[in-house]
Amino acid sequence: MTGASVDLNADLGESFGVWTLGDDDAMLDLVTSANIACGFHAGDAATLARTCRSAAERGVRIGAQVSYRDLEGFGRRFIDVPPEELTADVIYQIGALQALARVAGTSLSYVKPHGALYNSIVEHQDQARAVVEAVHAVDPGLAVLGLTGSALFAEAERLGLRTVAEAFADRAYRPDGRLVSRRERDAVLSDPAEIAARVVGMVTDRRVVAVDGSTIPIVMESVCVHGDSPGAVQIATAVREQLIAEGVTLSPFS
Amino acid sequence: MTGASVDLNADLGESFGVWTLGDDDAMLDLVTSANIACGFHAGDAATLARTCRSAAERGVRIGAQVSYRDLEGFGRRFIDVPPEELTADVIYQIGALQALARVAGTSLSYVKPHGALYNSIVEHQDQARAVVEAVHAVDPGLAVLGLTGSALFAEAERLGLRTVAEAFADRAYRPDGRLVSRRERDAVLSDPAEIAARVVGMVTDRRVVAVDGSTIPIVMESVCVHGDSPGAVQIATAVREQLIAEGVTLSPFS
Amino acid sequence: MTGASVDLNADLGESFGVWTLGDDDAMLDLVTSANIACGFHAGDAATLARTCRSAAERGVRIGAQVSYRDLEGFGRRFIDVPPEELTADVIYQIGALQALARVAGTSLSYVKPHGALYNSIVEHQDQARAVVEAVHAVDPGLAVLGLTGSALFAEAERLGLRTVAEAFADRAYRPDGRLVSRRERDAVLSDPAEIAARVVGMVTDRRVVAVDGSTIPIVMESVCVHGDSPGAVQIATAVREQLIAEGVTLSPFS
Amino acid sequence: MTGASVDLNADLGESFGVWTLGDDDAMLDLVTSANIACGFHAGDAATLARTCRSAAERGVRIGAQVSYRDLEGFGRRFIDVPPEELTADVIYQIGALQALARVAGTSLSYVKPHGALYNSIVEHQDQARAVVEAVHAVDPGLAVLGLTGSALFAEAERLGLRTVAEAFADRAYRPDGRLVSRRERDAVLSDPAEIAARVVGMVTDRRVVAVDGSTIPIVMESVCVHGDSPGAVQIATAVREQLIAEGVTLSPFS
Repeated sequence: MTGASVDLNADLGESFGVWTLGDDDAMLDLVTSANIACGFHAGDAATLARTCRSAAERGVRIGAQVSYRDLEGFGRRFIDVPPEELTADVIYQIGALQALARVAGTSLSYVKPHGALYNSIVEHQDQARAVVEAVHAVDPGLAVLGLTGSALFAEAERLGLRTVAEAFADRAYRPDGRLVSRRERDAVLSDPAEIAARVVGMVTDRRVVAVDGSTIPIVMESVCVHGDSPGAVQIATAVREQLIAEGVTLSPFS
Repeated sequence: MTGASVDLNADLGESFGVWTLGDDDAMLDLVTSANIACGFHAGDAATLARTCRSAAERGVRIGAQVSYRDLEGFGRRFIDVPPEELTADVIYQIGALQALARVAGTSLSYVKPHGALYNSIVEHQDQARAVVEAVHAVDPGLAVLGLTGSALFAEAERLGLRTVAEAFADRAYRPDGRLVSRRERDAVLSDPAEIAARVVGMVTDRRVVAVDGSTIPIVMESVCVHGDSPGAVQIATAVREQLIAEGVTLSPFS
Repeated sequence: MTGASVDLNADLGESFGVWTLGDDDAMLDLVTSANIACGFHAGDAATLARTCRSAAERGVRIGAQVSYRDLEGFGRRFIDVPPEELTADVIYQIGALQALARVAGTSLSYVKPHGALYNSIVEHQDQARAVVEAVHAVDPGLAVLGLTGSALFAEAERLGLRTVAEAFADRAYRPDGRLVSRRERDAVLSDPAEIAARVVGMVTDRRVVAVDGSTIPIVMESVCVHGDSPGAVQIATAVREQLIAEGVTLSPFS
Repeated sequence: MTGASVDLNADLGESFGVWTLGDDDAMLDLVTSANIACGFHAGDAATLARTCRSAAERGVRIGAQVSYRDLEGFGRRFIDVPPEELTADVIYQIGALQALARVAGTSLSYVKPHGALYNSIVEHQDQARAVVEAVHAVDPGLAVLGLTGSALFAEAERLGLRTVAEAFADRAYRPDGRLVSRRERDAVLSDPAEIAARVVGMVTDRRVVAVDGSTIPIVMESVCVHGDSPGAVQIATAVREQLIAEGVTLSPFS
């Protein structure tokens, strides 16, 4: 157990204009990597600028949380975007956030697709390739955060991008290692203590208990805690404290 | 006359999705600087990517044409955006285009405000400062293209940004050097030969005839030709050919 | 005092997609008129449908809260929209909400401009006329809710529309009867008991104490309580209970 | 042949702000039914108002061309919108256009889904039902224009809505009666004379030649001519003239 280390990531910068979502400053005190929205599913520019500054002040690493262009659906609805358009959309989003990050005195380290795009490119080869080509074209030094075994990772590895596998602190897993769909009951866990214990098991034993009670292996370098769910700050706090209590070091992926 | 040199700039990348505006490729064969939209008044990301590539292929210099966020009004309606939001909006836009330009193998040289923002910051001190602070924060090596004597230029000079004054090929001037409002008749000229002759006078004599018949001095390093008016390509062609015939060198501002 | 009657109105339906604003159901238990957003400054269609249904279930009257098209700025930024476009925008918004209201088993009774549009057409004659012409064209039986003495009311009366003057429960007044700007300190009151007492005075004495301590007359048939401020529900509850305790009847304007 | 009658429909009102698409006035002189956009894939409110007025002046019938909310993609990209949201989106769009039509002195007769939504609900049962429930809730007297044999029609008939089958003047058909995908070559015909002859065959013989050379039956009461393709006006003119020459009456479906 000693010597174990893990990255904690959360989705931030997801307010929009008058509408607030989550408590970015509180979450930035807890995580080591901040997936900041880029304006397509959330995040007006002033919000993004503020979130970049807050992350920079705390030395939290920043990634671009790229999405389908869908404010109404918060990027949670699959859109059949042709690959050439998707590549341009992703370059646009990364560039916008890069400039805001640079002005805040920091820079982007990675890209994490959001919502329906995240889910789609687990298997949608053309969109996965479109995203990866965008990331690579902007900066081949950017890592890609996502699911191990995904089309996203296959494409990223093909172009030599660093991939960072993540696990989800508060999501139920199927026996095959995939997530239980949000449309099913019990897809999302809510008890902070249970979630914290679960994450400790993921990090130290590389295993988690699936919905059918079986124990399955977990491959990951980063754990995603949600910033917008009810009790998000409390859950992230519990996860962080329990990891530290178990001797796990919280640090950004290398 | 010999040795005179001038930059020709035009607004490009202003199509959006299925809707086409202007003939970017034809204009890129004529101008020396391309003011490319950034998605807030026009320009979906795929259009902007294509326009950056076309400009790069032709060695045409690129500037970011930043705007109020207003697709419905094409950025032609004043919006009372608070300065902090405007600064973030401008950083966002410049960054998005920077990434698309970099992927196309080129880079941004300057920023030109668009439409109502352009007009507003001739006198609106707070918005002028907001725009200039954005440009300076992203890259103090970027020039600012606009009107001599404007609040924009005063603010830009205060921060040490290079300013590039422009004149308008096809717009009527008032005796005080300001443009005749588009809401008045005779605000826009349309005869290619007349416009070309007028631009030659601007470049070689630094003078232009105002609407009242008086001759007024013109301060400028760049001439703006419109890309979206009827006959735009024909006008730009006439301007270019007449300048060359008079021995004027067309080259980007230094 | 006995026999006094007043309408209580609040801005509702202002959530958007994943983002929630205010507690519509709680407010609908307190007010007699609901100003429901129309999608231009807030309110995705599913939110608007739900709010219409909740209002219909409680027998709360519905008005269309029309706005500039400005989700990013929540309709709080003046936009220099040409009158012809503004008229069409307002017809569009009213129509959209009319259909949602009809499907919910109710119908629109009035129109209330929102945010920057509300403020602008206190004096902006062209935009005031544009809004009024839209309302009149859709249904001359619709009332207009706004400020007494405004250009909006002058135009509405010219076309024979019913005007309903409102006062603000939680806003400070200047000695001339105008509101203290939100950009000044003390523009907004927050103590529920103080606000409730103030509203009782407005309704029963037709007077309110201005910021300079002077007592000024108030002309109004409806009192606006805010739905999105912190403590909104608590304030509206205090206002409602205090009015009832003083024998004032809460009922929609006739 | 004598006595045959058919409706000609086209997609109109698809300009947006500064961007023009098609020649609405020319097309309105040729068709008997106008599918007018509702702002979600195209059509700012001022454009829609003008198109409604032009249709009303010519006595052309109006239908609401409802779409996914997707200006960037012109409604041509499938979006996985949950049914409840889609129903609200469709009610919103129909209502907005109803008001603009009413102000123009006319009213809506039917609804035609646009682009990706049109294609999706040939088979996507949940979205088909969502659209039909919206139409029925707003006004059960509205007809639905679409493809015979589609899920849309099955749902519409279940609720007792009038369905109007359409054929496409300029699209190639597969032997099974479906359209050849736009992504394939030869999907779209462009020769006015050929298209006109084809439409005459559809109307008088109820048959058309498929891409494999076989002759297949066509079930339809309306023929769709495109308003935005190159040569659209010329094609629609040829279709109209040829039909009239063959003794076919052009009149709106009953």
